[in-house]
Amino acid sequence: MSERDDAEHRRLIVAGSGIAGLTAAIYAGRSNNDPLVFEGDEPGGQLTLTTEVDNFPGFPEGISGPELVSNMKEQARKFGAEIENGVIESADVIDDPGPGHTFHVTLSSGETYTADAVIAASGASARTLGIPGEDELMGYGLSTCATCDGAFFRDEEIVVVGGGDAACEEAVFLTKFASTVHLVHRREEFRAEDYWIDRVMEHVDDGDIDLKLNTEVTELHGSKEDGVDHVTMVQHPEGHPTDKLDDPETDEFAFDAGAVFYAIGHTPNTDYLEDLDVEMDDDGYLETIGGDGAGQTATGVPGLFGAGDVVDYHYQQAITAGGMGCQAAIDADDYLEDLERERAAAGTEAATPAESDD
Amino acid sequence: MSERDDAEHRRLIVAGSGIAGLTAAIYAGRSNNDPLVFEGDEPGGQLTLTTEVDNFPGFPEGISGPELVSNMKEQARKFGAEIENGVIESADVIDDPGPGHTFHVTLSSGETYTADAVIAASGASARTLGIPGEDELMGYGLSTCATCDGAFFRDEEIVVVGGGDAACEEAVFLTKFASTVHLVHRREEFRAEDYWIDRVMEHVDDGDIDLKLNTEVTELHGSKEDGVDHVTMVQHPEGHPTDKLDDPETDEFAFDAGAVFYAIGHTPNTDYLEDLDVEMDDDGYLETIGGDGAGQTATGVPGLFGAGDVVDYHYQQAITAGGMGCQAAIDADDYLEDLERERAAAGTEAATPAESDD
Repeated sequence: MSERDDAEHRRLIVAGSGIAGLTAAIYAGRSNNDPLVFEGDEPGGQLTLTTEVDNFPGFPEGISGPELVSNMKEQARKFGAEIENGVIESADVIDDPGPGHTFHVTLSSGETYTADAVIAASGASARTLGIPGEDELMGYGLSTCATCDGAFFRDEEIVVVGGGDAACEEAVFLTKFASTVHLVHRREEFRAEDYWIDRVMEHVDDGDIDLKLNTEVTELHGSKEDGVDHVTMVQHPEGHPTDKLDDPETDEFAFDAGAVFYAIGHTPNTDYLEDLDVEMDDDGYLETIGGDGAGQTATGVPGLFGAGDVVDYHYQQAITAGGMGCQAAIDADDYLEDLERERAAAGTEAATPAESDD
Repeated sequence: MSERDDAEHRRLIVAGSGIAGLTAAIYAGRSNNDPLVFEGDEPGGQLTLTTEVDNFPGFPEGISGPELVSNMKEQARKFGAEIENGVIESADVIDDPGPGHTFHVTLSSGETYTADAVIAASGASARTLGIPGEDELMGYGLSTCATCDGAFFRDEEIVVVGGGDAACEEAVFLTKFASTVHLVHRREEFRAEDYWIDRVMEHVDDGDIDLKLNTEVTELHGSKEDGVDHVTMVQHPEGHPTDKLDDPETDEFAFDAGAVFYAIGHTPNTDYLEDLDVEMDDDGYLETIGGDGAGQTATGVPGLFGAGDVVDYHYQQAITAGGMGCQAAIDADDYLEDLERERAAAGTEAATPAESDD
């Protein structure tokens, strides 16, 4: 449990500035909850890594990810949200005497804040394989963002690892630059939307994309100076070859490539919530109450709400994140109004260290 | 159970063309599920009744409801959705031999369709009080849509009934036209967003809005020819006066008014689902599975999914409806892919009347 210090007190803090956090900020601003949004490690969230968003409803011509995020920031500020650069490092509670408790939030800069409620909209970050060569080459030929880094690798053989929407989208996108894109997937079938599978197959027909199915990358070779030189891959006719390394049917081979892009999913960003003892599932996704009525985004910690990819391990769309951000702001508003009423009834105030016998 | 007739077969039918239905159509189109959307009784849904939408994320300057809907229609069509005028009157299942079942849908025009899956995004319709004078005066001075009808009542005393966001928004909007708006609410406190309460209170300070709290309207007086003439109201200092008509503190009085607007909530549109025996709550809202993973929008009837205000009795925002529409399309896609696989394995086909012993 944290000590109250000279931290600035806020009614509501939002962790994260992706679609969930910004939608929460729009709604919380309109509800007079003066939201303070900390942008986090990746301001604007994952959508800023997307060139063109075609499936956010309302934009028939599509809209770029950064433009959509920038629109939402403007909209949130218009209704009174403050959006600040800052990464929350830890969060804890101060048990006030009287109803409720106060959150105590520490940024990586050392600054501290207190808040009556917190919306965790901190998203998820790109996953890695944990194979040799990875740490050395990340940012030097190995990337988790085709939109950001694709153009550095013109006329190279590019390896894309993954089998979902993101992998297909990145593979298609990278055909603009690559000599050939080699899409490496550990199974036979893709998990992606048909839309993306169709786009990939068109490029396979054109010879721009080469499918390496039932295949995994096991090592990256190269140097910071010269980038990726080649990769080691394994293949097994029934898939998941790294589970079958001793099987005689497993084939290991070297493959020349100038760049490697990972698109193998994300890990939810919840480290900063550790001291709060909030419930998470085995993959680290924040557990919320759910159900069909009020308080769907509530967690087991009163006053802590979750929205977007930090909660949603399944749909992970911009529009679903927006929906949850809105719900979290409405849930937080209900909580804050109840808290205010209870505190008024008990004659205590949030920011005032009240006198007490214990 | 319906008979198979010469109905046109579709992979996916979407009932309703509000934000939930159109978002489902965008996603289902992208998933190659060839969605056929029936627009329903109120094409475009409730948002078409809203002049300005300020809280749909992505539009910092706001956007008109009809424009947002029209954008989404264009976007859905771009990805292959068909959107047709039509109201589904009933839906039933045909038990095919083999895996799954086929939905049989009848429109009010008498046309019939079959479908492998149905997304119910049919929204909710404005509720009425059920008081004397209502049936006669609906559309003749009594309205459930300020945006549609407000301008007909310039310089009139206008009564608005309700205490939520919609009532406050309509009251504020109607100050443009009314001599005075009288906001009649059966309790002391509003259920609305602070944003709307603040706007209302500004108009109260300016004398444009008069609050009639702890008050209910019990009868409407007037004629089709001359519209509303006056209304009967009751008031009790502790609220809910119609529950306390015999209480000596309850005061009944006549009040001159030229128009009455109801903003007292909505009833979900689910009559057409009656034959499917799908689970609904006491208020008629469709029950979906929920939870935190796949299939959140599934109902107890395999292949029937629910999204938007026909399910959501609490948040009821455009962005939350959009989120649910997206989820329903993804859930329906999973269902349809499984069904296809099961049918292929069983050697049966959806649209072919298979031979069977029973």
